[in-house]
Parts: sequence; structure tokens; C-alpha cells
Amino acid sequence: MQSLQEKAAEWSGVDAEDAFAIDGTNLYEKLGLQTFISLSTNFYEREQIGCRTGKIGTWIFYMVRVYADEEEWFRSIFSKSKKEDAIQNQYEFFVQRMGGPPLYSQRKGHPALIGRHRPFPVTHRAAERWLNHMQQALDATSDIDLDSKTKMLNFFRHTAFFLVAGDELKNQNQAAPCKNCKHPGKHAAV
Amino acid sequence: MQSLQEKAAEWSGVDAEDAFAIDGTNLYEKLGLQTFISLSTNFYEREQIGCRTGKIGTWIFYMVRVYADEEEWFRSIFSKSKKEDAIQNQYEFFVQRMGGPPLYSQRKGHPALIGRHRPFPVTHRAAERWLNHMQQALDATSDIDLDSKTKMLNFFRHTAFFLVAGDELKNQNQAAPCKNCKHPGKHAAV
Repeated sequence: MQSLQEKAAEWSGVDAEDAFAIDGTNLYEKLGLQTFISLSTNFYEREQIGCRTGKIGTWIFYMVRVYADEEEWFRSIFSKSKKEDAIQNQYEFFVQRMGGPPLYSQRKGHPALIGRHRPFPVTHRAAERWLNHMQQALDATSDIDLDSKTKMLNFFRHTAFFLVAGDELKNQNQAAPCKNCKHPGKHAAV
Repeated sequence: MQSLQEKAAEWSGVDAEDAFAIDGTNLYEKLGLQTFISLSTNFYEREQIGCRTGKIGTWIFYMVRVYADEEEWFRSIFSKSKKEDAIQNQYEFFVQRMGGPPLYSQRKGHPALIGRHRPFPVTHRAAERWLNHMQQALDATSDIDLDSKTKMLNFFRHTAFFLVAGDELKNQNQAAPCKNCKHPGKHAAV
């Protein structure tokens, strides 16, 4: 049976060595707290829609934020959490995981990534969409050099699919046969 | 609704501040790799049953190890994992969490404590029994000063009950009503 890490590597296309290259450098010391706050703020609440006219026509700048994602199924994953909390949870975890002080654990305890993502449908499609937002947030955050950005993206990509593998475990369990069912296997989705 | 951390604090009697006091000191630098290897080895494979006779009678030394626990229900939690792997998983996680190199993540990925404990019945009783073994393993490991031992025990105790809270989530989900059941709520235990 494939391990969670093996599934994450296969599905993300990022092997463990590249995913955890973030541990080879202290990205927190390199980038500083403000960069992590900006990144998560950009990820969740960036909203800049505008246009300008130039010699060759009209340019439209269109940036979406997670809470205003055009896809309802994706937006709904976040709909029950306050944006300010989501931002703080995310940057505190990133800071802690990338060499900074353990802000997340001091406030919320163990990251417990799979456990805390349990209420959400972390599908392949959701992972790709999350990563797309994160790629845009990284591009929009100044002061992240290319090497750090590559390391972070590899970590995010591998981690996103690690959570898809964790989600799959949950679904396997829910689809287990029910002794008292008329139609075994047709469980209500919880 | 209580958070996982709040439940862990209530059930363990150790609040978050005490639990994460391990982050105030680098215990890995203070104690060294060998101490962590000894601790986990003591936890899993310590087995020393002996007696000696003295002036006041016979003293019996009785130390149990996890794999030889007298309670079958507890022993069976570990029965499917190789002892060598269990030792390595544990000390690599402790080293990583207590200020050392990220040995665990380099080999196995995210700790994902709740997710990786998913297959096991992490009950209140199992947590207490695990902690009892860990207390004995700490006592049997030389070179752990009292302050470090207290910090580690607080972390272990809070974490054990954090996992009990995580286990509770899993069970709540399994007990959710089933639309196609003759007898809703009477699911097969998975």
C-alpha cells in the first residue's frame, strides 16, 4: 500500500526531497514575518480588478481572491471561517514550519494538517485550485526571491496532495459497509 | 464548541502554555540525539524483569515494555508495526519537534498526528496507558534533567489527549445518521 507521502509525490509530481527543501534554508529568517503576513493576506483577500487603456487597446487586470472565487464549490470550503482568522492561521503555520517561532502551536496547538482539514472536501480539483490561488499570491508578494518561491511552491504542492491523500482515507472509511443498511455503501455524505 | 486544543487541556490537565513550554528551550541541543534514541528504545523495547534477595526480603523489579504490555487491547494497537520502525518514527518526530533536524519529515512527510493515528482507538484509557509507559521510559533514560523531563511530560500529556480529541472527531463522523439504514445510527464500527 502506498504511504501518504508516496501518494503526495505521485499526484503532485514533487518528490519528498524537493518538497522538504524548505528545511535546507531558514526561509523565515530570509524573508521576515511581514512577507508571510503579506503572502497570506494576498492569498485570502487580494481583490484588484481594473483596466487601463494603452496604445494597443485595453488591458484588463483581473485578480481573484479565495473568498470571491468564481466557483461556488471552492468558495464554500472557506465560507464558514472568518477571513481574518484564516489569514492568521495560515501565516502562523507557514512561519512556524519555515524556521520561525512556533506562533501557530502557541495559539492553536499541533498543526495536525489532516485532522484539521477533515471537515473539508480536499479533492484533486480543490488542491489544484488552492495552488492556483497560492501561485498568484506568491507572484503578488514582493520580496520573495525566485529560489524561495520555488521551494515554497514545491512544499505547498506536495502538501496539498498529501492532504488529498488524507482526504481519501476519510472517504474510504465512510464508504465502509454498513450492516444495517438497505443499500450498503450508499451512506449519507457527512 | 470546544477546540481540539481546549479539549486536550481539559482532559490532560495541562494547559497550552505548559504543553508548548518545550518551545522555550532547544531540548534537542540540550539533550542530544542519543538521549532521544534511548528514550524511544526504552519506551518500546525495555524489558527487564528480575529479582534480588536482600536482608529485608526479595525485591522484584518489573518493567514492562509497550510490545509486551499485559493488556491485550493496548498491545494490539502496536501489533501490526515493526518495533524498529516504531522506535525510529517516534524519536525522529521528537527530535524534529524539539528543536532538532527535520528527520521525520525528510523520511515520512508531515507528522499529521491526528491523520496518522486514525487507524487506532486513541481512547482516554489508551492515552493514560501510553503516558504511563512514557513516564517509565523517561525515568529509565539517564541524562534527562528534571526540568526537561517535566517539559516533555507536559507536552506528551497534552498531545496524548489532543489525539483523544482527534479520535473523538472520527467517531462522531462514523456515528452520523445513514440515510439508507433500516436502523439509523447503528453503523458497523469501522
